Amino acid sequence: MLRTHTCGALRIEHIGEETTLCGWVAKVRDKGGMIWIDLRDRYGITQLILEEGKSASTLLEIARSLGREFVIKAKGEVVERLAKNNKIPTGDVEIKVNTIEILNPAKLPPFLIEDETDGGDELRMKYRYLDLRRDNVRSNLVMRHKITKETRNYLDGLNFIEVETPVLIKSTPEGARDFVVPSRMNQGEFYALPQSPQTFKQLLMVSGFDRYFQIVKCFRDEDLRADRQPEFTQIDCEMSFVTQEDILNTFEGLVRHLFQTVKGITIGEVPRMTYADAMKYYGSDKPDIRFEMKFVELTEIAKGKGFGVFDAAPMIVGICAKGCSEYTRKELDELTEYVKRPQVGAKGLVYVKLNQDGTIKSSVDKFYTESDLRNWADLMGASKGDLLLLLSGEVDKTRSAMNDLRLEMAKRLGLRNTEHYSVHWVLDFPLLEYSEDENRYFAMHHPFTSPKPEDLSLFETNPKAMRANAYDLVINGVEVGGGSIRIHDRKIQEKMFETLGFEPEEAKAQFGFLMEAFEYGAPPHGGIAFGLDRLCSLFGGADSIRDFIAFPKNNSGKDVMIDSPSTIADAQLKELSIRVAK
Amino acid sequence: MLRTHTCGALRIEHIGEETTLCGWVAKVRDKGGMIWIDLRDRYGITQLILEEGKSASTLLEIARSLGREFVIKAKGEVVERLAKNNKIPTGDVEIKVNTIEILNPAKLPPFLIEDETDGGDELRMKYRYLDLRRDNVRSNLVMRHKITKETRNYLDGLNFIEVETPVLIKSTPEGARDFVVPSRMNQGEFYALPQSPQTFKQLLMVSGFDRYFQIVKCFRDEDLRADRQPEFTQIDCEMSFVTQEDILNTFEGLVRHLFQTVKGITIGEVPRMTYADAMKYYGSDKPDIRFEMKFVELTEIAKGKGFGVFDAAPMIVGICAKGCSEYTRKELDELTEYVKRPQVGAKGLVYVKLNQDGTIKSSVDKFYTESDLRNWADLMGASKGDLLLLLSGEVDKTRSAMNDLRLEMAKRLGLRNTEHYSVHWVLDFPLLEYSEDENRYFAMHHPFTSPKPEDLSLFETNPKAMRANAYDLVINGVEVGGGSIRIHDRKIQEKMFETLGFEPEEAKAQFGFLMEAFEYGAPPHGGIAFGLDRLCSLFGGADSIRDFIAFPKNNSGKDVMIDSPSTIADAQLKELSIRVAK
Repeated sequence: MLRTHTCGALRIEHIGEETTLCGWVAKVRDKGGMIWIDLRDRYGITQLILEEGKSASTLLEIARSLGREFVIKAKGEVVERLAKNNKIPTGDVEIKVNTIEILNPAKLPPFLIEDETDGGDELRMKYRYLDLRRDNVRSNLVMRHKITKETRNYLDGLNFIEVETPVLIKSTPEGARDFVVPSRMNQGEFYALPQSPQTFKQLLMVSGFDRYFQIVKCFRDEDLRADRQPEFTQIDCEMSFVTQEDILNTFEGLVRHLFQTVKGITIGEVPRMTYADAMKYYGSDKPDIRFEMKFVELTEIAKGKGFGVFDAAPMIVGICAKGCSEYTRKELDELTEYVKRPQVGAKGLVYVKLNQDGTIKSSVDKFYTESDLRNWADLMGASKGDLLLLLSGEVDKTRSAMNDLRLEMAKRLGLRNTEHYSVHWVLDFPLLEYSEDENRYFAMHHPFTSPKPEDLSLFETNPKAMRANAYDLVINGVEVGGGSIRIHDRKIQEKMFETLGFEPEEAKAQFGFLMEAFEYGAPPHGGIAFGLDRLCSLFGGADSIRDFIAFPKNNSGKDVMIDSPSTIADAQLKELSIRVAK
Repeated sequence: MLRTHTCGALRIEHIGEETTLCGWVAKVRDKGGMIWIDLRDRYGITQLILEEGKSASTLLEIARSLGREFVIKAKGEVVERLAKNNKIPTGDVEIKVNTIEILNPAKLPPFLIEDETDGGDELRMKYRYLDLRRDNVRSNLVMRHKITKETRNYLDGLNFIEVETPVLIKSTPEGARDFVVPSRMNQGEFYALPQSPQTFKQLLMVSGFDRYFQIVKCFRDEDLRADRQPEFTQIDCEMSFVTQEDILNTFEGLVRHLFQTVKGITIGEVPRMTYADAMKYYGSDKPDIRFEMKFVELTEIAKGKGFGVFDAAPMIVGICAKGCSEYTRKELDELTEYVKRPQVGAKGLVYVKLNQDGTIKSSVDKFYTESDLRNWADLMGASKGDLLLLLSGEVDKTRSAMNDLRLEMAKRLGLRNTEHYSVHWVLDFPLLEYSEDENRYFAMHHPFTSPKPEDLSLFETNPKAMRANAYDLVINGVEVGGGSIRIHDRKIQEKMFETLGFEPEEAKAQFGFLMEAFEYGAPPHGGIAFGLDRLCSLFGGADSIRDFIAFPKNNSGKDVMIDSPSTIADAQLKELSIRVAK
């Protein structure tokens, strides 16, 4: 090794030892008689010291020539610091330097390599290797390493086997758009990159692997958003001979283990909520339950008093914002504007203020008596000082808008604390969603999800009402994992494809191998997949996943550092038997 | 869980307990009065027993209806077996069954699900999920899991961080052929799949990650052979502030750890050999040193005696096959035919027999006296009973042919025992190879490999003589890992690209980001990558890597199970702005 210690290793007990450190120059302070150098590596920062008169003049000259981010090797004696720095673990000591060797000089970085940097997003993406030097970005990736390590420890301890499934697979039209790879050896044919190893992990269950997992890259060619990348990583798991209850227990155990070992947080019981309740009380299948503010339906009670908007609405729903009765006209107007934004889509907002002085004031005083309003307040568990916010309209849209409003109010009230975690399951999802646009059913999870046995007969009579043996794990309003008990019976799988509008030949061409596998002794099985990038960003208390990925792509799917994607040589295209369409 | 125990769990101490097992019917033996069922899962086999008169007749009926590979759930009492089976860990007990539930019936598998199967390669590939049920195939993958787990344990213990690098990167013309992925969002542009994360891991060193590893899929669009797959897995590692010596120590430590924990084998010292010696003594840069049979050069001593073939040859080289003096005319003719095969390429074979009775017999008695031949024998350390085999010709070709002959002789002599392991390093590789065909230099490892500092001046005078700070780890004649100390200086990297015939603009377009990174404080660094598939096959004592990969592709790059690659829809092609060339 070029060094004897890292820059995070030296303590008071090393005093008197000779040491050689390597690292990056974080800072040089030259006070004439004395020069201090902060030397940085992954493990920490150690202070080097040189003194006019005591250090050789050539050495002082080298020290004075050092710029930020120079890579050096410094040799010297560990001495006690006069002015100790208790902010860093090495703060009790410094190195009285004898020799400095410049291993590599450095140009001035285009932005500050510090937690608070002056570099914009694009610049930091272009010089990602410098951005990764920043302590907060690197520590995100160190945490990611810990999460994958503890995931493997936990699952290995439960007899799960990590098996690699192929990356070059087959394109399937169902679901999101595939990335494809032209095959040179098979002209005109293409591989596809997996959106998930779903069918392979099910085949491993048919093979008797019993418990499988894999931390695996997956790919979706979708338009990008802040929390979406064309390539992303899943913790992918599957088990045989289990019920839904077994999966929930096993994987809330995983989440508990990760919180404990990575964050030092003990999470208690993991509550469970049906999809129906999640929609009714939170208007979302991934409610943030760090705070209450549940929906209260006023549909029956608020009709028939002459307020046309409510009278015509299939649904009237309210939330109680605790302690917000003092909201000004301006604040209420802002909220009204907020709910009327196209992304939220409400037509207007009704409010009721339960003033501290006992009076009531609402935007619908014209239509409702004080006693009407007090009735609402009672139903909503509101008391003096609270603010009631009501929306009305078509059921799904109103719930969705109220979900947005609830989250907005929570933000304003500081209830979305990233250091507080609420973990829960959402269960009993519908099996199918009906698309009005395409006039057909889609699988809400995926076509391999099993219906609840008691709902099987609804295939013929009312597919929309069928519930799935499916579950999502939600943390702080983010869907972190999802899975299901799978179909393991060929007939039910065929019925499912039929309901989804597949022609039998089409289903056979795409998934024939899986349906055939079900005939050779497929065990009951089920599984789950966690989004690792998102899990990491939640553990890191951040909204975006980008800083938990070493080399992310931007919103155009580009890596601006390596300049990818890019054109390729004509000879390459020719070998692959493809042409670029003009 | 549908079961209380696995099929590998029950022992004598469980006698009297009620148990529920799930698994596959491996065998049913119906002796009229008694029925035995072998129930199999990943963990083992447990015997179920039913008895006419004692078991319910409906139960007997179900048992008699069971076919091979049916999936069942069986409930009953653990009882002691009268005739114990000491070949399996559950052999002391059996289950007196009360109920059997058929969870899924099974069609007759197209081949036997046993270690020795009657299924051919193609059939087993098509029904890979059934092939994976075979104990020997599944145990390969369980071993693979152990190898990756212990690799992670070892490296994590040394402060290595696993970092995921991107799969959608940029195509580079140097090296093997890339798989490419058309970008929908950037018309006419392509991503490439990585042949290795080489540049990214170097950037992580520039970022100060200090110690990186990743177990990662890599891709090469090359024509396939038995031990090559279009997608393969590397254990990819990189360290900063190290010398070659540090890398050798760290990673022979990894290999030692894997042998110890996975195979229970203690490997001793890991010998080191220069590339020059490997070529001189074994004619190969990955010699199999489980056995001796070193080359002895007779070039000087065997010339000038009138044997025209030798007199004209730049090299004459021999090996001594211990105890083979009794080889018959037929066997010697076979060897001669062997070396004359085009793949081996020798023109002929000279032999000298040191007979047990003290006489000498050779194919060149005409030209050499007995004393000449005894001289050869002395030089080659041969004694009575041995056989000397000699080849001659151009240096490289002769060494290569002799390498083949040496391995062939070792095979015939049973010296290539797959349960015996020899591990060693080959060092000091040449930096460059000259291609006569293309009239230019190629990097022997890759263009980021650093020359030995003392050879730097040869860039100008004799590039071919430059040695690299590069090393390969060889086990039993297979190159399992390889790496180098990298260039971390922009000027040397530019010089390297220039020597490889890159135009400056070309080098900048392809690798500008890396050369720029070298200017912002790049530490000295180096690394290594191991071929995981090959390492697994070596640990498993097999030649082919295919049975250590869950879902491999065949020699045409096809997955015949899922029928991939395949054509894709015109709409997909259109979205991607590509056309298939007719």
